[in-house]
This record gives sequence, C-alpha cells and structure tokens, in this order.
Amino acid sequence: MPSTTMKALRKPRAAAGAAVESVAIPEIGPSEILVRVRAASICGTDLHIYHWDRWSASRLHPPLTIGHEFCGTVEKIGANVTTVKPSDFVSAEMHVACGHCRPCRMGQPHVCQNGSIIGIDSDGCFAEFVRIPESNIWKVDPAIPEHYAAILDPLGNAVHTVLSGPISGQTVAVTGAGPIGLMSIAVARACGATNIFAIEVKAHRRALAKTMGADVVLDPAAGDVVAQVKEATEGAGVDVLLEMSGNPDAIHQGFKMMRPGGRASLLGIPSRPVELNLVADIIFKGATVHGIYGRRMFETWVQMTELLKAGRLNLDPLFKERLPLDKYAEAFALLESGEAGKILFYPNGSK
Amino acid sequence: MPSTTMKALRKPRAAAGAAVESVAIPEIGPSEILVRVRAASICGTDLHIYHWDRWSASRLHPPLTIGHEFCGTVEKIGANVTTVKPSDFVSAEMHVACGHCRPCRMGQPHVCQNGSIIGIDSDGCFAEFVRIPESNIWKVDPAIPEHYAAILDPLGNAVHTVLSGPISGQTVAVTGAGPIGLMSIAVARACGATNIFAIEVKAHRRALAKTMGADVVLDPAAGDVVAQVKEATEGAGVDVLLEMSGNPDAIHQGFKMMRPGGRASLLGIPSRPVELNLVADIIFKGATVHGIYGRRMFETWVQMTELLKAGRLNLDPLFKERLPLDKYAEAFALLESGEAGKILFYPNGSK
Amino acid sequence: MPSTTMKALRKPRAAAGAAVESVAIPEIGPSEILVRVRAASICGTDLHIYHWDRWSASRLHPPLTIGHEFCGTVEKIGANVTTVKPSDFVSAEMHVACGHCRPCRMGQPHVCQNGSIIGIDSDGCFAEFVRIPESNIWKVDPAIPEHYAAILDPLGNAVHTVLSGPISGQTVAVTGAGPIGLMSIAVARACGATNIFAIEVKAHRRALAKTMGADVVLDPAAGDVVAQVKEATEGAGVDVLLEMSGNPDAIHQGFKMMRPGGRASLLGIPSRPVELNLVADIIFKGATVHGIYGRRMFETWVQMTELLKAGRLNLDPLFKERLPLDKYAEAFALLESGEAGKILFYPNGSK
Amino acid sequence: MPSTTMKALRKPRAAAGAAVESVAIPEIGPSEILVRVRAASICGTDLHIYHWDRWSASRLHPPLTIGHEFCGTVEKIGANVTTVKPSDFVSAEMHVACGHCRPCRMGQPHVCQNGSIIGIDSDGCFAEFVRIPESNIWKVDPAIPEHYAAILDPLGNAVHTVLSGPISGQTVAVTGAGPIGLMSIAVARACGATNIFAIEVKAHRRALAKTMGADVVLDPAAGDVVAQVKEATEGAGVDVLLEMSGNPDAIHQGFKMMRPGGRASLLGIPSRPVELNLVADIIFKGATVHGIYGRRMFETWVQMTELLKAGRLNLDPLFKERLPLDKYAEAFALLESGEAGKILFYPNGSK
Repeated sequence: MPSTTMKALRKPRAAAGAAVESVAIPEIGPSEILVRVRAASICGTDLHIYHWDRWSASRLHPPLTIGHEFCGTVEKIGANVTTVKPSDFVSAEMHVACGHCRPCRMGQPHVCQNGSIIGIDSDGCFAEFVRIPESNIWKVDPAIPEHYAAILDPLGNAVHTVLSGPISGQTVAVTGAGPIGLMSIAVARACGATNIFAIEVKAHRRALAKTMGADVVLDPAAGDVVAQVKEATEGAGVDVLLEMSGNPDAIHQGFKMMRPGGRASLLGIPSRPVELNLVADIIFKGATVHGIYGRRMFETWVQMTELLKAGRLNLDPLFKERLPLDKYAEAFALLESGEAGKILFYPNGSK
Repeated sequence: MPSTTMKALRKPRAAAGAAVESVAIPEIGPSEILVRVRAASICGTDLHIYHWDRWSASRLHPPLTIGHEFCGTVEKIGANVTTVKPSDFVSAEMHVACGHCRPCRMGQPHVCQNGSIIGIDSDGCFAEFVRIPESNIWKVDPAIPEHYAAILDPLGNAVHTVLSGPISGQTVAVTGAGPIGLMSIAVARACGATNIFAIEVKAHRRALAKTMGADVVLDPAAGDVVAQVKEATEGAGVDVLLEMSGNPDAIHQGFKMMRPGGRASLLGIPSRPVELNLVADIIFKGATVHGIYGRRMFETWVQMTELLKAGRLNLDPLFKERLPLDKYAEAFALLESGEAGKILFYPNGSK
Repeated sequence: MPSTTMKALRKPRAAAGAAVESVAIPEIGPSEILVRVRAASICGTDLHIYHWDRWSASRLHPPLTIGHEFCGTVEKIGANVTTVKPSDFVSAEMHVACGHCRPCRMGQPHVCQNGSIIGIDSDGCFAEFVRIPESNIWKVDPAIPEHYAAILDPLGNAVHTVLSGPISGQTVAVTGAGPIGLMSIAVARACGATNIFAIEVKAHRRALAKTMGADVVLDPAAGDVVAQVKEATEGAGVDVLLEMSGNPDAIHQGFKMMRPGGRASLLGIPSRPVELNLVADIIFKGATVHGIYGRRMFETWVQMTELLKAGRLNLDPLFKERLPLDKYAEAFALLESGEAGKILFYPNGSK
Repeated sequence: MPSTTMKALRKPRAAAGAAVESVAIPEIGPSEILVRVRAASICGTDLHIYHWDRWSASRLHPPLTIGHEFCGTVEKIGANVTTVKPSDFVSAEMHVACGHCRPCRMGQPHVCQNGSIIGIDSDGCFAEFVRIPESNIWKVDPAIPEHYAAILDPLGNAVHTVLSGPISGQTVAVTGAGPIGLMSIAVARACGATNIFAIEVKAHRRALAKTMGADVVLDPAAGDVVAQVKEATEGAGVDVLLEMSGNPDAIHQGFKMMRPGGRASLLGIPSRPVELNLVADIIFKGATVHGIYGRRMFETWVQMTELLKAGRLNLDPLFKERLPLDKYAEAFALLESGEAGKILFYPNGSK
C-alpha cells in the first residue's frame, strides 16, 4: 500500500524559521496534477520567508509548504486533464491567474489582479509532491537538462526582462549580477545584445558576469560607473538598462547611464520607495520604463524553451550546492552569505 | 526702403523681467527661412524665463528674444530652400536636432543629445520675424485656423502624450487640467478613449475639462480620487495614465489609479525629484511608463494635422486673451493667475 | 415538469437547405453553461452553409444546429463555473481554443491550431438554448442594448481589423461596405481615423457608409477609385487599408491606394487564390499586411465593450428584419439579395 | 597638378553591356562629400542593369556610372559639411530620401515617395570617386574590416529583414540562400533565432547556409520541404519566414511552413505577379507580412554596426573574387553563374 504522507519543508507558524515535517500527499481535483518533485531551487524570496520579514508576515498564512522553483515527473492526473500524462517531465508557472479580470482579459495574466502564487499563498514544491492546476503545468522539452528545468521560474524572469523590448544590436547595462542578473546577461548575449556592461559590487559575481557573457564588468565602489559607461559608448549611454538589483544607488546610476530614448526594464525589488529624478532620467530623456513581474504566460516559456533547446544558454556556472531537503538550514545560510549560486534540493533523494 | 529692424520681446539680461526692444531683423542662411509672425502663444516655460528661475539661469544666455509657439507667413527663403515659398502659411518645430547622434540615428530626434530650442537657446518668435531652419519648418494645412496654428507646439505635446501607446477603447486618467492636459483630453476623446477621468484642483479647469470631453472630473482636494476612479472602473483602475501636472501628489495618485499592465505617459515636469513606490506602482504592476518630451518629428505633426483638418478637435474653449506684444506684463500676470487660457500675441498687429 | 426538448434551426444532412426541428436541450458539463438565446444574428457564413457550398461540405458534419452570433441569459451553470450565474446577460466567443498549441501559448488563441467553432463544428445558437464552455462566455455590460449584444461576433471582427495597427490620426480606405465593412467604418471613425474612404459597388451600401461615418464614398464601377483616393490625399494614398470585400479587384485597388509604409488589414475572404503584385504593392512599398481572423481573446471584447458602453458607436442603421426562427427561408433569401442589414432571429419569441 | 578625370564603370547607352571610361571627377556642392572608393561590391541589380532588362530600360537614363555598394575614404567635403572630415573611413546609404513626403514625415524615409538611388538614378560607386550628400554618408567604425564595409548595403537589407519583427527565441525559415539570404541566416543566428531552416535548391549554397548558422538545410527539389519543416516543429510550422528568393514556389512553400500567427518578411523580388492563397496562408492564419525595401534610416545602420563591432557576424565565407574595375565582364559572368560569393572591385588599385 502506497504511503499517504510525504516529507515537506514547511513554515509551521508565523515566525522565523522552518521545519521538515511529514504531511499528507495532496489530493488532486479533476483539473489538477500531482507532480513528484525531482529538483527544486531556492529563491531569494524563500530566504525572506525563512527570516519572516515584514512582507512575509503580511502575505503568508502558515502552516504552509514553501518553494516555487522546481521540476519533476507527473505522478497522477485529474479526470479532465489532457495536457500531460503520468511520467511526463514537467515544471510549472507558479503564478495562478484568475482568467477574467481586466489584465487577464487584455492578455496580461502575469499581472492578474486576483492572482496567487503556489509556494507563497498555497503549498509549494519543497516537498516530495506538489499539486499544480492543469492551466499552469509546463511540459519540459526532453532536450533540457534536469538542473536547468529546476530553475525555469527565475530564468523566465530574466527572459521576460530582456525581451520586454528590443535587444538585438543594442548596448545594454545590467545593474546587479545576482542569479537573475547573471542569467539575463546570458540571455541578452544570446539574443544579440552587443556591448553588455555588468555593474556589480561583489568581485566573484563580476567574475561570473564575465563568464556569462558580459563584455565589461564594473565595480561601482571603485569608480564612477556612469562616466565609464558613457565613455565606452561615445558619450551616448546604453540603449537598454536591465535593473536587477533593487538597490536605489544602482537604479539612479542605471538611469543616468541609459541614453535618451532608451529602455529601462526594472525587475529588482527595492525594499522602500526610491526618489527618482523623473525630469532628467525619464521625461526629458523620452525613456520607456517597463516594470517586470513574473513571466509572460506563456510567451516567455516558449522563448526560454527555444533558447535552451537550441543550446544558446550555458547556465552551468550558476549552479553550486545540491542538498537533501533536511539540510535547509545550511542552504539558507549559504544563500545568505551571497556566495552561493543556485542551490538545488532533491526531495525524493539525492542526484 | 524696407525696415531692417523689428520689435521683439526680449530677455535683455540674466535677471527677472523682459522688455520690448527694437532689434535687427534676422539674416537667413541658404537653408533657412524668415517667417513674419502672425500669432504667437505663451507657454508656462516663458513664465519661468520671465521670473528667471533656477532652470532659466542655468540654461539661457541673454540677451535673447523669447517665445517658441507661433504661426506666420514665409517672408523670405534661403537659396537652397525647396520645402516652402514666400507667403506660405507656416509654423515650426522649435526643437532643432543634430541628425547624427544616436537618438537621431535611431529615429528619435525629439530626444537628440545635441538639440537646441529656438526661443530658449536662440532668438525666438515673440517678434515681428523669426528665423527657422528648413529642416524644422512646417507648412500648415489651409483648413487649420490661425489661432490653432499658433499652438501646434503644445497641442503636439498633447498628441505625442496621448498617442505614445494604445488609446482606442481604453479608459484614461488625466492628472492636471492645465492647457496641455485639457488638449490631451480632447485628443484622447477624438481617438476613442472611452472613460476619461480628469483630476484637477481648480474648479474652472475642471469645468473646462468637461467641455473638452472628460467623462468624469474629480477634485483631489475633495475626496479620495484613487478610490473614486477604482470604483468607477469596477476595481480595476484605468488602462492609461496621462500625467500632465508635474505635481508629486498627482503622480502618486495617478500611478495608484492605473491598473496592473497599464500605461503611464509622463509629460508634467516636477520641480524636484519624486519618491516613487517602484514595487507597488511599476514593478509588480508590470506597468509601461513613457517619458514624453517635445513632439515626434514629424509623426506627431502629421497626426495632429489630420485630427485638426478633419475637425475632430474643438480647442476654442482654451483661448482667451489676444494681446499686442507690448502688453507682455499683463500677459504674464494673467498666466500666473492660473485663470487664463492660451494667450496669443500679435507682433505684427492685432487680430 | 420542464420540457427537455427545444426548437432549433438545423442542417439535417449534407445537402443544401435547413430545417427547424425539435431536439434535446443540451446537457452541460461541470465547466459549461447553458444559455437561453434571446436574439441571434445571421452571418454570411450561415448562407454558405445553407447553400452547402464546397467549403461547407468539406468542414461540417450534419446533423448540426447552426448559428454563431447571439446573446441571451444564463439558464444553468456547471458545478465548477464561477464567472457567471443564472440570469446573467451574456454572449460568447464562439471560437474555442485548445490553450496549449504554439499560437495559444504565444498569446494568439484566435488562431489556435486545434480550434473549433460553435455553430460550425458543434451545435450553435439558432435554437432556444446553446451550450457554451466557461472559457468562452462573455458577460455583457448592462449598458449595451440587446440587439447590439447579438452582433458582438461580427462587430468584434471589425474592431479587431481596425485596431490591428495604428488608426488615430490616420487616413483609411475601407474596401467593401457589407455589414462588417460598415461597422469598421463606425469603429475607425470613433477611434480617430481622419479621412475615411469607403469603396463599394452597391448604392444603398454607399449611402449607409456615409451614415456610419465615411468621409468619402466611391463607386468602383463609376470611375478610377485609386486615382480618386490618391488625389484626395495629395498623391500619397491612405495610411491604412481595411479590406472587407474579399473581391480580387477591390484587393488590387486597395493595395494601390495604400501609401508606401502603409498598413493593410485583410478580413474579406476571396473565394479563390488572388494574384498580387508583391513587388509594387507590398515589397517596394515597405507595407505591413495583417491577416485578420476572429477576435483577439479577449482584448477585442474589452475594447468593443468600452466603445459600446461609452456610446461611441451608433450601429442602429445596420439593423433591419427581426424574425422568428421558422422564417429562416425568408431570412436567407433576404440576406442573399444583399439588401438586408443584420437580420435577427428570436428563438424564444419575438421582440 | 591633380588629375580632374577618373576611371569609371559606365552604362554608356540604353543597351546591354558596360564600359570602363574616363570621366570627370564629380564636383561637390556645399552639403556634399567626395569619397575615394576603396572597395565596391556587385549586386544582383547590377547584373540586371548590365543585361539591360525591362526594369533597367524603364528606370535608368544612361550614360551613367553604376554601382551602389562600397566603402572608401573622404577625399573632400563641401563648405557646410560637419559630419565627416577628409580621410574618414565611410560608406553610404545610397537611397536618397526627400525628407518631406508623408512616409518621410512618418519616420519611414526608406520608402520615400520621391526617393532616388545613387548608382541607378545618378552616378554610382564603380569609379575612383563617388559623390554623396551629407545626409547619406555613414562613418564606418574602425573596428569593421574593409571588405565588410563594402557590403553594408546588402547586409543592411538582411538586418532590416530579420529585425522587422521579433526574432529572439523564434524558429525561422529562410527561403533562398543567395548572398542576402546567407547574411540573414548569420544575423538571425546572432540575434537568438533558435531553429533556422534554410531552403535552397543549390547544393553549394546549402553548404554555405550551414556554415553561416542554419540548423537545418533543405532542398526543395529533393522532398516536401513544407512537411519536413512542420515535422521538425512538432506540426506547428516556424514562427518567422524570411523570404529572400523571389521565387513563386518558394513563396508558396514559405507561407505554408509558417505557423498561424507567424511573421513573414518579404525581401526577394518576384519577376511577375504571384498568385497567393490569401485565405489559408494569411487571413485565417492571422499572419503579419512585412514588405522589406532598403534599410531603415538609420536604425538598421546602427544595429548592423553594433553587431559587426561586437564580432557577432562572421561573413568571411561569403567573399570570393577581388578584381580591378576593368575585369567587369569576368565579374558579371561569375555572378551570373550563381557560383560566386560577393565580388569586390578595387577601383583605386588592388587590395
């Protein structure tokens, strides 16, 4: 008789910390899918939840299984499911859209007004099994390696950011070379960006930025990065700013190094309001600014799949530790140090 | 023997004030045009120059003839000019682009890096005659009335703002119902915007906003305008924000009343940096923000001409005083009161 | 005890003709809705099906209830339905998309590769009741009159065509002033098109085109319409061609009257391949051509709703006969004559 | 005393053939530039002119110096020229736009209604010197090798075609692997196209297509290329068609292998009208078709420069013969054979 319980990394109560617990394997409805998790990846958001910061306290309702980046195989499907079948290799878009609010009706379900996120608003993927509605399942192309399939969620953020405007034949500044910043460098490079500047304070991330395809890496602690980018672009500034840091200084510098008529796509999340020189940096510049949230459903997933299938993205330098679920304290400590790459959990046994 | 001097409204020195003086009629080069000014209109920028605010002091080099909104007839053309001939009815794009910087080469001369503005960086149109390079002359369609032809510069700002993104079948909030805000209401209405909210503190401007085509006018001093707009849009917020005030509170309210996935086009000029809640108002909303400067050269001029020729815009309610040049003090006082509409000068004699 | 049967206009077998028959009221599944039809409208496609032309013979599998333009009230909802409730006033998008093919995944479900059409591939709305999947139901705003709600399908074709590219401040030629061509004139006008030329052979349709907002109506049998449009546009040609006729001559003329750099949106369906002068009419012109099919799901529905709610479209001149279902032979005869406007059926009793 | 004459490859009269003649070095006006030609490249159009086909006879007015692809150094500048100075390394956009027709005013000077082409409508670059208006000169970045600088005109065609719509993460079919088709493969690859199919009848061109970056090469004489592309794209067809052949069969196949909702950019020039199945291939597919002519002024030049500077394009396999001007008969024979790559002339002495 098969087990009806599973191991899951949980936020047991409204406080800092987490715990591996034994919980019931999710029941699925007629339009849902049960996925056996193969590999799951930790996001910076998970660290905020672990520490129970103000945002977490205002949003989450423990007890809850956390985690929202993963891949796995279909274990069971509901009666109405036709998109996948048992043993298919899958990942999922974890933002669940309502389908009938105005953004959804206008083709923008990624900013659904009634949206919820699996792993934040309902039980997530740091567990042996996770339940996914059919609308959100994504069949992973067999050409895509397992560890890449585990990080489609943040890679999708990068692809969404890079492709939110013209990129081919354009000069680009990426402010912030954390995991998504680094992925966006690789994506921009693969899509024909031609002079990629990475602005980052940490030396090992600058080194990684070079590996991922940055043409020039700059340390804002060591010089005037705005002047450096302007000089390297014949005084013009870059065509495109990809803001991946959420740091107010980086945001200011980023806008200043963007040329008049340029495009800024903002993904990094500042922890508080930011004072902007709207006149000089946006209005008189005739700039276009895109706020980036999640991934386009499902254009981003198609574009990302194509780039990965075609072997255009080498993301291997980003991966580091691979741990069992119960090493979560070690995983969060590593992530906090800022020295880790993408950390993978293997809830159903080690790789 | 024709006179070689003319009357002009001048900023004689780097200080507050202005003076009507007699100066030489401009000489024209082989690719330039001398225009006899018929009607000229005062811009808010002229008031800043009159008072010699910090921006004016940092930018202008007196002595200088001011003014940059006008229409007139071609008096004389340079040897190489082919676009217009003497007695043609004309206006002009007063932003002069270099043609070879990166924005110019990318089809964005309105944000030229080496641009200058006639009436700010060189002698303007508050005079009997003004000199215009052929690249910037605009032959006015005879179907367009003279007083409309005198305000194509600010009307072009409005058209550029409204048409910087989709507008047909979209709900719209216009924050700030000064002259350009009012024109943008008329333009949005003519272009199929369907539920136009005007947000404005002054009662007579709210009344004008109604006249120009606003469906709903709201006074931010009298209630929670964000809640009012949300309620009137079934909780969604508007598709489009046209920010015409430059007021930080209006900017904050504007972003909050814009729906997720919406578009904000910013024309109003805040007098200092503005603190923005980037996460809630732009990033998580997946918003698109456009900085608007000048007019697209010359798409905006074509669109504006078409709308005027077809009689789609009734701008008559915007016009008030028509004065000779030497009534400039009265004109600036009226403008400062905030009670005036568009004030017209007639440097070559009254209408 | 409520009746389990209903009256329906059917294609009983693979041959010309139709019949009103008594059939079972459709059963609905957990994600489906049963709609009591209030008013239904006849499309040109229904006439082709009636006559059983080659296309019909290759596509339909009788017996089948036909009809795909309608409005009504929700009679019953499946267990999982949350979008509407009984007695809501509704219409529906009759193109059903699969949701997982590449066009669906790229945000283009209107050209789904596995799509089917209710009323063509499954039982339609010329009946007392019609079954609609929840994904396709459209709650009609109460501000929209019933007879307008019955023609949202073809009006959506018009809105989709007009808004498939820039329209505000643009000159437009509409070739073919049948019902959808006439609606597209009204939509273009409401959205700021500025000089609308309607090209149509039938005099009463040209008169209607004027009523709907055409600035100029031209009869291709009476003169050189290309020369006339060019002359009226200072030799340039129009910015936008909306091809609504499917007639090869009109298509040729349409492309010739479109300016270099213009946009052509093709909705009319030619009955056979058309020889095009690709070099002169598309390639050297740098033209953009859009094929138009169905309605964007659901951007078009939102735009259309906004325009109707705001009272921007007066479609009353398009309506003529209102008939009970069993007058179908009369209805098809009228439609065939080309003299009818939109004909409405009232399957549950006359208006 | 410097010579006042130069050697030029001329079309001396309205008939087949050409001749190297001694003619006067062009005089330049105040806004013109005299360029000493370093390397010039032969276009298929030059071959048509050489043979004096119907198009040539209708367009050209001999005597005339032909040639419109080149690079060189500035020899002399007119009094008003500021963009370049003597000895600068340059090329030029050879399509001269009027600047004031409607397409020019709408930002589309590449389809100017009054345009002329240097080397077709006035003396071209197969000569020791060529005269270029300042508006059309293009300063070549020193990082770009001379032989690449000689073919910026056709490379610009390729860049314009590829970047006329989304390309990153998209599957692509290129029909026709002549020089521009081959360049477009390299450009598409550099810009993130992910599965590039090249369809070409000539074996050596298919081999070159592979070298330039095609993932799959197909011979339409050897099998059903539509079926092959569909099978390789899981039945969907490609996202993007780049039609570079002008061959009616290739055009038909290209449209059939493009997916619903796809984009077709047409550059190849059919020699006569082409019968299209508009319904199946464009209308019901909801396709977007772009006619491509020349290069966008000057967005394409900027994008091309960026891609070349960054080393993203290896075009070396395309080059073959380098000849003095008087070997023109040999050059045209080679070109006609279809076996040549890009042939370069060195009017001022061999490389």
